[in-house]
Amino acid sequence: MRNVRARIAYDGSAFFGWQRQDGFESVQETLEQTLADLCGAAVIVHGAGRTDSGVHALGQVAHFHVATRLEDERLRCALNANLPRSVVVTRLETCPAQFHARYGARGKRYGYLTLTSRSRPPLGRALAHWVREPLDLAAMRRAAGHLRGRRDFRALASSGSPRKSTVRTLSSIRILARRRAFAVIVQGDGFLYNMVRTIAGTLIDVGRGHMEADALPEILASGDRRRAGPTAPACGLYLASVLYPEPVFAGRDAGPRGAAGLFPF
Amino acid sequence: MRNVRARIAYDGSAFFGWQRQDGFESVQETLEQTLADLCGAAVIVHGAGRTDSGVHALGQVAHFHVATRLEDERLRCALNANLPRSVVVTRLETCPAQFHARYGARGKRYGYLTLTSRSRPPLGRALAHWVREPLDLAAMRRAAGHLRGRRDFRALASSGSPRKSTVRTLSSIRILARRRAFAVIVQGDGFLYNMVRTIAGTLIDVGRGHMEADALPEILASGDRRRAGPTAPACGLYLASVLYPEPVFAGRDAGPRGAAGLFPF
Repeated sequence: MRNVRARIAYDGSAFFGWQRQDGFESVQETLEQTLADLCGAAVIVHGAGRTDSGVHALGQVAHFHVATRLEDERLRCALNANLPRSVVVTRLETCPAQFHARYGARGKRYGYLTLTSRSRPPLGRALAHWVREPLDLAAMRRAAGHLRGRRDFRALASSGSPRKSTVRTLSSIRILARRRAFAVIVQGDGFLYNMVRTIAGTLIDVGRGHMEADALPEILASGDRRRAGPTAPACGLYLASVLYPEPVFAGRDAGPRGAAGLFPF
Repeated sequence: MRNVRARIAYDGSAFFGWQRQDGFESVQETLEQTLADLCGAAVIVHGAGRTDSGVHALGQVAHFHVATRLEDERLRCALNANLPRSVVVTRLETCPAQFHARYGARGKRYGYLTLTSRSRPPLGRALAHWVREPLDLAAMRRAAGHLRGRRDFRALASSGSPRKSTVRTLSSIRILARRRAFAVIVQGDGFLYNMVRTIAGTLIDVGRGHMEADALPEILASGDRRRAGPTAPACGLYLASVLYPEPVFAGRDAGPRGAAGLFPF
């Protein structure tokens, strides 16, 4: 048995999220079944993060133990040849036995993609959120600046799951603008439930003029979720990459990743 | 009864083409049914061009006669509120009784969108063609230059439907490149069946090094379809706009159109 890590991209609109659930198609189960068919034995795939239903990934990372004699690149190609078209393994390599995709991660990068157009966009509806009004990007960038650093993000997260602390470090938050779209790119050591979607929804409220950019420090300090903006829809959210202390997937790239990768075209 | 013209964008992957066909969902029938429900009477919608199954439109134009008392912008909003999410009316205006979307058109602009990435793209699969190899854009642009002007395009079209002449004028052909995608943008007075898709497939063959850029004049002269490249798949093709001698849809725009509109993001 060897330990293998893979970087995976998927169209979240084709799945009920990453995590295996009886009766619902998940990315994890899809990968596990494809690996089991290839290797002739059950395989458990451990992902770095559980993306929700409808959430996409450009750089999810997972590890699994397999007994196959296929070398790495052959295994990657065999997987891609058998996976549905909505999932692609962009990188794959044999890794130390102790590598764990989730426990070894020291941070993640997410992007939230929004189209801006007066008319509802008929194309790419499952790949981005849509806002009709022109947005004040300068105000959104000022608001984003208030979120950078080590802070208690309780006000910007759903109270879904219990956790010890709601303090996280947002090491980077940027807004990349294109002609008819923008992406909010965040990087941090960890994210609370729905935190990126709530940050996106709150920044959009600021961009619309429904909230002051300089109201953010007070909202954070209040710890009150009701004072922040709405949770933006899942279709705009992308897990862009998972960060590890050691170098992973060195060398030539085989797929989109990072911030610029958030614009599929 | 007044004559109304509309500019329409749609996701072709949701339809079996523009034209009404018994038992298959078409854009034309979808619009006709929505109009009939709004107006309480049967309506026939005449499109400028019949896009094939899977082909998208950013700027299809159609006209229809309706008896509704709704003013233009109200009618447009009512239509959009009732159409499926894969179709949007981006502009609508009452027009002279003699305006005919198809017979009045003097040209069209199409775009053909291709993603280039080593890995199969899991996102946006129905919105673009995909090519794995790096392409030589300079060679493709040189090849494209041979197609500009008034020429017999018989070698670059499927022999689907009978027609008097296979001579057309390609007034413009350009290749717009982005980081991981490119679009071939063509404008002309008319296009033969599958002509844009064959041009795209042939230019991609040139970009791959499978065909010489300067072989194009000879291929055109031969009139032999078998000497050109393959017909590129429908998913990459966009009807970008329809051109009329008179100004149509003047004033503020309400949706994507033209060349830059080919990049949905």
